[in-house]
Amino acid sequence: MKTRTIEVGGVKIGGGNPVTVQSMLTVPLTDTENVLRQISDLENAGCEIIRGAVPDQAAATALKEIIPKMKVPFVADIHFNYHLAIASAEAGAAKVRINPGNIGSDDNVRKVCECLRYHGIPARIGVNSGSVEKDILARYGGKVTAEGLAESAEKSVRAFEKYGLTDVAVSIKATDVPMTIEANRVFSARYDNPLHIGITEAGADEEGMIYSAVGIGSMLMEGIGDTIRVSLTGDPVNEVRVGREILRACGLRHEGVRVISCPTCARTDADTLSMVHIIKKRTKDITTPMTVAVMGCVVNGPGESKQADIGVACTGSRGVIFRKGEIFKTVSRDEIVPLLLKEIFEIEKEKNAL
Amino acid sequence: MKTRTIEVGGVKIGGGNPVTVQSMLTVPLTDTENVLRQISDLENAGCEIIRGAVPDQAAATALKEIIPKMKVPFVADIHFNYHLAIASAEAGAAKVRINPGNIGSDDNVRKVCECLRYHGIPARIGVNSGSVEKDILARYGGKVTAEGLAESAEKSVRAFEKYGLTDVAVSIKATDVPMTIEANRVFSARYDNPLHIGITEAGADEEGMIYSAVGIGSMLMEGIGDTIRVSLTGDPVNEVRVGREILRACGLRHEGVRVISCPTCARTDADTLSMVHIIKKRTKDITTPMTVAVMGCVVNGPGESKQADIGVACTGSRGVIFRKGEIFKTVSRDEIVPLLLKEIFEIEKEKNAL
Repeated sequence: MKTRTIEVGGVKIGGGNPVTVQSMLTVPLTDTENVLRQISDLENAGCEIIRGAVPDQAAATALKEIIPKMKVPFVADIHFNYHLAIASAEAGAAKVRINPGNIGSDDNVRKVCECLRYHGIPARIGVNSGSVEKDILARYGGKVTAEGLAESAEKSVRAFEKYGLTDVAVSIKATDVPMTIEANRVFSARYDNPLHIGITEAGADEEGMIYSAVGIGSMLMEGIGDTIRVSLTGDPVNEVRVGREILRACGLRHEGVRVISCPTCARTDADTLSMVHIIKKRTKDITTPMTVAVMGCVVNGPGESKQADIGVACTGSRGVIFRKGEIFKTVSRDEIVPLLLKEIFEIEKEKNAL
Repeated sequence: MKTRTIEVGGVKIGGGNPVTVQSMLTVPLTDTENVLRQISDLENAGCEIIRGAVPDQAAATALKEIIPKMKVPFVADIHFNYHLAIASAEAGAAKVRINPGNIGSDDNVRKVCECLRYHGIPARIGVNSGSVEKDILARYGGKVTAEGLAESAEKSVRAFEKYGLTDVAVSIKATDVPMTIEANRVFSARYDNPLHIGITEAGADEEGMIYSAVGIGSMLMEGIGDTIRVSLTGDPVNEVRVGREILRACGLRHEGVRVISCPTCARTDADTLSMVHIIKKRTKDITTPMTVAVMGCVVNGPGESKQADIGVACTGSRGVIFRKGEIFKTVSRDEIVPLLLKEIFEIEKEKNAL
C-alpha cells in the first residue's frame, strides 16, 4: 500500500519519497561536546535523521543547545515518562519515538498527542518483541508472533488517532528476520502509516550486517519501508554506511562508486582483490554514481564490463580496459589500476559536467 | 513453484530439500596440493558443494586424483569446450555447469546430454548478463533485462531437454540485485528447475556481502532458491561463512550461536560490543543452535532476552542474567561474560543430551 507522507524537519517520509537512512546516538545528550562530534560524524556519513535517547530532564534541556547546531532532524526517543516527550518537542525535536502503551494513563497519551499536534511534529511508534502487550501475547499462546506484533502496532496507532494524531510512522521489529518481514507485510496491507524498518538487536559486525541486509533488503524489494535504521552494536557510523549500501543494493540509491568484481576462479591468477581494495580506497569520496568492473578473466569479463562505466578484464599478463562496453585500451598488468583510476576521475568530471 | 529434485553426489537440490551452500575454487585443479588444501578449508567451513573451473584437459585429468579425496560433491565449470564436460563427467564430477549456447554446435549439446545421462549426473545452466544471446538482447532493445535473462535460461533448458537431459539446475545472475530478483521470479513462475541463486560479481568485503545478502535473502524470503553461492572476491571460505549466515538470517539454518545485541544508546555505558566479541570468539565452534542476548539496558533487555536461551540486560554496574526469559542471577559487570560463557557451554551440553 502506498503510505501517507509525514514530515520530519524538512525530510519527507513515506508516500514514495526517497527511503532515508537513520541512526541513533550512543553518546548521552548531556555530554554536549562528544555528542556534537558524534552528530557531525553521522551527518558526514550520510545519516539523514538522527535519534537520541532522552532518558531524563537534563537530556531534554541539552537538546536546546544541540538541535540548533544540527544539519539533520533530531528524533527524541522516549520511554515511560511522557513529560520528556513534551520537553523534547518544546526543545525542537522534529519527531518523537514513543509508544502509547508505555507512558501510563490514557490522559498522558492525550497530552502527548496535543503537544505534538501543537508543534506540528510526527510520532513514531516502535513495536518490538519486548513491547507486545500481555493481552495480545495471551491471544497467541503467550508467544510473540508476526500477527501479534502487527496487532500491537495497530493498537498503538489507534491510541494516538483517538486524540487526532495521525502523522505517525510505525516500526515493527524483531530479532527474527522472517517474523519481522511477515509482521510488516501484515501491517502494511492494512495501514498506510509510513514504515520505519529494521531488524532489532541484529548483533554486531558481519552477523548484524547480514541479518540487517537480508531483513531490510527483503522488505524494500517487496516495496515495504519508507525509512531504515540498521541496528549494529558499535559505532553508529557503521549503521549509516551499511544502511546506505543496502539502499544501493536495492537500486534505491546510486551515489558513489560501485565496484563489481568477480570472485576469481582457477582461470586467472590476477589479484583482483588488491585491485578492488585500491580502487575502493581511492574513490571513497566520489559521490557521482558510477560502476567499475574488475574481472579476473575474459569469460564473464567483457559481458559484465559492458554494464559498467569502466572495467577491466584481465587476460594473461595484460588487462583489457573497457569503457561502456567498448574496448578502450589494452595495458600491462601494472598499468591497469592507474589507468582505471585516471579514467574514473575523468568519468566523474564528465558526469558532473552534464 | 515447487522445484523438481536433482541429486548432486549425495546432495539433493530442490523439491523442498534444505538449501545448500556452494562455493568455487580459486586454486587451479592442476596445483593438486594447494587445491586439496583449499577444498579441505571449504569443507571445514561448511561448504556443501564445491565447483572448480576445468579450463583444459590437464585440469580434467587432475580431477581423477582430487575427487576421490573430497568429502563433498565436485561440480565442473565448463566454458566453450564440450570435450572437457565429458572428460569431467568421466573423472567423477557430480554435476557440470555448462551453457548449451557456448559450446558450439547442437551436435555438441547432444553429446554432452548423452554423456551426462549415461553417468546419471545433472547439469547447471548459468545465465548472467554477459551470456544473454544476441537475438534475445535485440528483442529487448539491446539491453539486458530480467525478462531477457529468464528467456535465455528458458532457451538453454529447452536445448538440453531436446536431448532428454531434464536433471538441470538453473542460475540467473546479474550484478544488479533488483534485476536478478525479477529474472528469478519470472523464471520460477514458469519452470520447476531447481534454482541456484546468487548475485554475480557482487564485489568484495562489505559491499559484496551486503549486495549478496540483500539479493539472495530477498529471493529466499520469497521462496525462491534451492542452493546458493555467494560470489565474493577473495578467499572463498568467506563465501561459505556469509552464505551460511544468510541462511540463518532467513531462518533456514539454525546451527551455532546467534548473538543478538543492542546497538546501545545513551541509556547505557555498558560495553556490549566487547562482550559480543568475546562471546562470538569463544563460541565459534559450537554447532548447537542457541541464541544469546547482550542488551545494554533494561528498556528492551528483558523483552528480547525472553526469546534467547540466555541473555544479559546491563543495568548500572550490574548485569541481570536471564535464562529462557526468567531472571537467573544478578552479577557485577565483570562477572557477566564469564557467567554467560559458563551457561552457554551448559546449554550446549543440555541440548546435545536431548
